Amino acid sequence: MRPSDRVTLEDVARAAGVSRATASRVVRGDTGVTAKKTKAVQAAVASLGYIPNSAARALVSRRTGTVAVVIPEPDQMIFSDPFLTQTVQEISRDLDEADIQLVMVFGDQSGHGRRAAKYLCNGSVDGAIVISHHRFSGQVEAIMSVQIPVVFIGRPVAQASPNSWVDLDNVSAGRLAAERLLECGARRPAIITGSLDMVAAHDRLRGFREVLGRVGIDPVLLEGAFTAESGRAAGEALAPRIESGEIDGVFASSDLMALAALEAWRDRGLRVPDDVRLVSCDNGPEAAAANPPLTSVDNPTDILGRAATDMLRAILDETWDGQPVLVPARLLVRQSC
Amino acid sequence: MRPSDRVTLEDVARAAGVSRATASRVVRGDTGVTAKKTKAVQAAVASLGYIPNSAARALVSRRTGTVAVVIPEPDQMIFSDPFLTQTVQEISRDLDEADIQLVMVFGDQSGHGRRAAKYLCNGSVDGAIVISHHRFSGQVEAIMSVQIPVVFIGRPVAQASPNSWVDLDNVSAGRLAAERLLECGARRPAIITGSLDMVAAHDRLRGFREVLGRVGIDPVLLEGAFTAESGRAAGEALAPRIESGEIDGVFASSDLMALAALEAWRDRGLRVPDDVRLVSCDNGPEAAAANPPLTSVDNPTDILGRAATDMLRAILDETWDGQPVLVPARLLVRQSC
Repeated sequence: MRPSDRVTLEDVARAAGVSRATASRVVRGDTGVTAKKTKAVQAAVASLGYIPNSAARALVSRRTGTVAVVIPEPDQMIFSDPFLTQTVQEISRDLDEADIQLVMVFGDQSGHGRRAAKYLCNGSVDGAIVISHHRFSGQVEAIMSVQIPVVFIGRPVAQASPNSWVDLDNVSAGRLAAERLLECGARRPAIITGSLDMVAAHDRLRGFREVLGRVGIDPVLLEGAFTAESGRAAGEALAPRIESGEIDGVFASSDLMALAALEAWRDRGLRVPDDVRLVSCDNGPEAAAANPPLTSVDNPTDILGRAATDMLRAILDETWDGQPVLVPARLLVRQSC
Repeated sequence: MRPSDRVTLEDVARAAGVSRATASRVVRGDTGVTAKKTKAVQAAVASLGYIPNSAARALVSRRTGTVAVVIPEPDQMIFSDPFLTQTVQEISRDLDEADIQLVMVFGDQSGHGRRAAKYLCNGSVDGAIVISHHRFSGQVEAIMSVQIPVVFIGRPVAQASPNSWVDLDNVSAGRLAAERLLECGARRPAIITGSLDMVAAHDRLRGFREVLGRVGIDPVLLEGAFTAESGRAAGEALAPRIESGEIDGVFASSDLMALAALEAWRDRGLRVPDDVRLVSCDNGPEAAAANPPLTSVDNPTDILGRAATDMLRAILDETWDGQPVLVPARLLVRQSC
């Protein structure tokens, strides 16, 4: 079953209201198309779930033995987010075993992603793996429209996007965090979310609210940005409410944010789990090494990285079964809750 | 003056005792050459300072608008060393301004670098920037032998290597650290070096010893590896000697090692600068944010990154003056010494 293969470039052109030649130029990353038409084609590619068929791919490029990894985030975030750096390392290891060269493609600072998309189409790479916290961005759309096989770590956001993705079950992650907080006696919980323009942040919040809603609890919400800075700011904002007893448990939706909140509370003399229970998400090495060690939902970079490289290789070898991979969430219980 | 342009591929073949065709295959990254001949050609390229002339380059590839960055270190080090990640970000910013696509090439886990060298020669990129703490490795030699323009951040190690490098004046960096420790009254200093198979580590040690030698002091030496783990281990090893008064000042040759040593001492109740003075090197944001803020020799990633991208673009445009760039060392005095 490869449903998305059945959508043709003609379908895309028709939906976008452009000629087949124009649609073709956009999916090949040609920069000579107007922004309006480019956007229309990208939207059509995303909503129809178009992926180029292998014949078209074969015309475009011979095999190069090179695969690209793309992280549509600012460079600073790429290098400071342990989930991203860890995942890249896993992909690097997996591809190295198969003697495939990995290159990391840097995005345009402008964020529109046209230059990176053009690079992906210029015949230098056989395929790409996109790692993202799933921000709704033009950059992801630009990459989704390229005419090479692309596997996403993190479900892409378009309504009828390609099935070539692997992801953590983020709704379950949110549920597990809420269940653990309740189990430990928290009754006035808060959540520090990631940026809510990201699917992972949104889904974790949804699962969290769902479980608490069943027992009539509406959690306090602070929107973070999956960064240390935003975690610290949220921790500081919550501190007086923890001191007053208004908040007794927190789900921070990433280790980076949880660790920064923990530090903010420590500076104020607040103790975890005595004054406030804390559940994190990612379960990176930092979660286990923290003081106290953090209870965290596992976001297994090794499984995600391996699944993504396996899927990309299967697509290239035309043996892919057309199915996405959803990795079950799992809670690691430690001292923080 | 472009002295290394005068060395021809014939010279390389002769010095290596192989045919011109074999030498050509090696510099093009062809993997079909025996290890012995490959090594001989790489050694000849390095010792003669061969770089391909522009006519040869023009034959090999058209301009692609893409530049590669290569860090011949294990992936884990690439993502955890602030000097490396900061430098990559500077390069990314500089190239983005010129609308040049940056890709980061991951090394082979085996460390021999043949696959990466082959990638660099396959026509995907116009040139490469290699960032390294200058380890003596086959990977660097493999990259030095490729037939595209390569600029090194960190002076390469071969005896008659190309002039296309930018580097901090590391000998001066060591001198400045020693002078500051003496100025602050330290008389029993120690140094935590980087891996001594790296030029930067070696040069910092040389400058440090030179200044102390003039006043008859022979510093205690602990060899680290430019990693947090090695800094912590060295800090722990030094702690009893600080407690006993045997050591009263330390030069840690990178921020990463200095911060880890600082943490080890804090855990033991040792105070900086009261019990031991500490001078660091790199002057990353972490040095200024430390408690106490660290006196550190600046290793200016912005200047190095800009100089490297400017040099590479000049080589590509055939306007390079053939001279390396040595960036003067500068000490930032803060509370730690």
